[in-house]
Amino acid sequence: MKQNLTLEALRQLLERRDMCALRDALTQTHPADLAELLDELDRPEMLAVFRALPKELAAEVFSDLPPEDQQALIQAATDQELSAIVEELWVDDAVDLLEELPAGVVKRVLQAARPDTRQLINQFLHYPENSVGSIMTAEFTDLKRDMTVAQAIAHIRRTGADSESIYTCYVTDAARRLEGVVTIRELLLAGDQALVADLMERDVITAGTGEDREAAVARLMKYDFLSLPVVDREGRLVGIVTVDDGMDVLEEEATEDFEKMAAMAPSEKPYLKTGVFTLARHRIVWLLVLMVSGMITGGILGRYEAAFSAMPLLVTFIPMLTDTGGNAGSQSSTLVIRGMAVGEIRLRDFARVFWKELRVSMLVGAALSAVNYVRLILTYPGQTATALTVAAALFVTVLLAKTVGGVLPMAAKFFKADPAIMAAPLITTIVDAISLVVYFNIASALLPLA
Amino acid sequence: MKQNLTLEALRQLLERRDMCALRDALTQTHPADLAELLDELDRPEMLAVFRALPKELAAEVFSDLPPEDQQALIQAATDQELSAIVEELWVDDAVDLLEELPAGVVKRVLQAARPDTRQLINQFLHYPENSVGSIMTAEFTDLKRDMTVAQAIAHIRRTGADSESIYTCYVTDAARRLEGVVTIRELLLAGDQALVADLMERDVITAGTGEDREAAVARLMKYDFLSLPVVDREGRLVGIVTVDDGMDVLEEEATEDFEKMAAMAPSEKPYLKTGVFTLARHRIVWLLVLMVSGMITGGILGRYEAAFSAMPLLVTFIPMLTDTGGNAGSQSSTLVIRGMAVGEIRLRDFARVFWKELRVSMLVGAALSAVNYVRLILTYPGQTATALTVAAALFVTVLLAKTVGGVLPMAAKFFKADPAIMAAPLITTIVDAISLVVYFNIASALLPLA
Repeated sequence: MKQNLTLEALRQLLERRDMCALRDALTQTHPADLAELLDELDRPEMLAVFRALPKELAAEVFSDLPPEDQQALIQAATDQELSAIVEELWVDDAVDLLEELPAGVVKRVLQAARPDTRQLINQFLHYPENSVGSIMTAEFTDLKRDMTVAQAIAHIRRTGADSESIYTCYVTDAARRLEGVVTIRELLLAGDQALVADLMERDVITAGTGEDREAAVARLMKYDFLSLPVVDREGRLVGIVTVDDGMDVLEEEATEDFEKMAAMAPSEKPYLKTGVFTLARHRIVWLLVLMVSGMITGGILGRYEAAFSAMPLLVTFIPMLTDTGGNAGSQSSTLVIRGMAVGEIRLRDFARVFWKELRVSMLVGAALSAVNYVRLILTYPGQTATALTVAAALFVTVLLAKTVGGVLPMAAKFFKADPAIMAAPLITTIVDAISLVVYFNIASALLPLA
Repeated sequence: MKQNLTLEALRQLLERRDMCALRDALTQTHPADLAELLDELDRPEMLAVFRALPKELAAEVFSDLPPEDQQALIQAATDQELSAIVEELWVDDAVDLLEELPAGVVKRVLQAARPDTRQLINQFLHYPENSVGSIMTAEFTDLKRDMTVAQAIAHIRRTGADSESIYTCYVTDAARRLEGVVTIRELLLAGDQALVADLMERDVITAGTGEDREAAVARLMKYDFLSLPVVDREGRLVGIVTVDDGMDVLEEEATEDFEKMAAMAPSEKPYLKTGVFTLARHRIVWLLVLMVSGMITGGILGRYEAAFSAMPLLVTFIPMLTDTGGNAGSQSSTLVIRGMAVGEIRLRDFARVFWKELRVSMLVGAALSAVNYVRLILTYPGQTATALTVAAALFVTVLLAKTVGGVLPMAAKFFKADPAIMAAPLITTIVDAISLVVYFNIASALLPLA
């Protein structure tokens, strides 16, 4: 097992100013662990440690640091140090960095880069957020079709140090159009004299630069690829999406869905690093919208004032009824939203989902109503009509909640809206209003309220 | 782009019984796409197509099929066909398969396997669900420390066809204890005569067979590995977790959290393939628990019957108040649950989370109360005391909802329970009860209800 460098040990090395021992300890630690350590240090300590790192390791640690630490380092760096960092970074990491920095600093960083790096970064900066272009890597291994396996392996050995993933090689023609794909594994398992053209797969599964990143990652997962080639409109290979970036996208998109489904604007930074005002801003808008819906429900309730004035007991069943309706509805909507997010449920499955939810809701509704009826008969002996009212209202509420909950996310998708807004909070509000109307109408029919 | 084989084209080839053309079309299609096509065919068609596949491709397609299709194929297969499938499958896929099959069929499959395969499968079947052992692959590339690069590459070329991932090679001693790790990339970039012992990284980051699979995948992601070695208690290398299986775990765990956070028992199969009774069963238990909590809230409400009999208008603000409280609370709990799931928030951050939620809730509560106060003053002119009651109750509700929502998931984790149960449904019920008590107590103090 890896002997981890602790924060205390690192601080001691710093205090003793033993640069040799420090450098030794640093190079024996994984960049991802170093980034975590640096993030815990004070700014001057962080700067001192960062400067002690060998150049290549420094770039790796840098790309694992949170944006605010990156910014601090850049602001403290000399032009020469800055240039070294930018040139060592993978282009996609450099672009991620620039997107977080204030404009003045971006200019300084771009000036520190070599002209060709600068041009590439500028091109990447133009891809829209959440597009494949914004997550792709510019460094990949490309081969030519007329190479032998021996030549190809020699080529990879010569140039491979520059590519983030050398395990999948892409074959391009003179105009950089993608012609085929071959894995290192296939090259290694073939004879030295075999031709790349004979080994390569010609039907290449690709992604477009402007495509949604989620769709590209789903493809990467479906085919178990280590990287997915990205082509422009002319079919020229411009980059690759690697599986480690794919995993990050998967986790980020799930987090975004959790946030949206709990009625929040998705955040860019992790929770602990997000300021109180930003957090409040992300939450207030939806709460206001839902508060207004709550007021409308209140208005509906107001119309039945005569009913609950005549029989105040009715009011005490409202929380149970609306809570159960909301929960039943959000169960269905959660399953359908997630099913659509992972690509299992499509719009053409609308009828199947509706029919399934209808049957499930009848089973669930019947069970819950029965339990409720029995408990009401036991608690309020003789009040059969009240028990029947509550049980019937509960059954209808569950039935409506589940069908509405299952169908609305698909309707949202059909109208090109984000299905995730049709989650628990909105479904609950909608179902609240429906269940109150159902409840008081059944009560009016069964009970002597006038 | 890939020329996709359509369902109609496949059916036409089947009808024409043109086995050559069929085989050609099949071998030109990706296994993952073939699995999707087979799943849409009728059982006899599926069997016919499956039998037309070359042996190795058949195993790949088989492992991509949903469990019920796998079962149908196995029940229709001869002993010889069965043996061919089992021997071609990766051990982890074979184990996944066996876990889904009825006991009688498992026995038949195990009898069809070679003795050493059978032993390996039996060993894998004993790892607990959700453990690293249950997702690891037994096939990996292992090297010896005294090999040269040339010998290592020759070894990989000779044996590599048997390993699911050849890109990361593990160096083991005579007792199979893990000594180091070296990537194909490092081997290729080094000279032919360099020694594996000099190239390998000795501080290997590993996982244990009994460890939680989520923790191992988090490590795989953190270090951007293509595979993570799995060792037993004696430090012997027993398998690897590959990045493609890691992505599947990531997606499954997120889906499980979505289900749990919407008060459902997590499902094993995708939504459309799950039966109505199973779906109903997964949903009923939590709905019953929450229904009982809703009844308790109703009981609390019953204690204030005198208050809302005296002033029925008070009842109409209940939905808005409880909905907003529930939503505000579940925003906080969702962020904290997700933050803990991705490893950002730890138990030691308890005080930070509490302090953050307290400040956010004051901002959000103040904004919502202000909006509400203004709208009530405009709607019910002259009823300042009522407006003040509702606004004050709303402020206190949001404050309590957000702190409770932020803190309860961490408390659950502290008591070794699953934080995901402290999500929207339960938080809503808890906050409902609190907000009603707060509301009617403020009303009693400010309004002439007696």
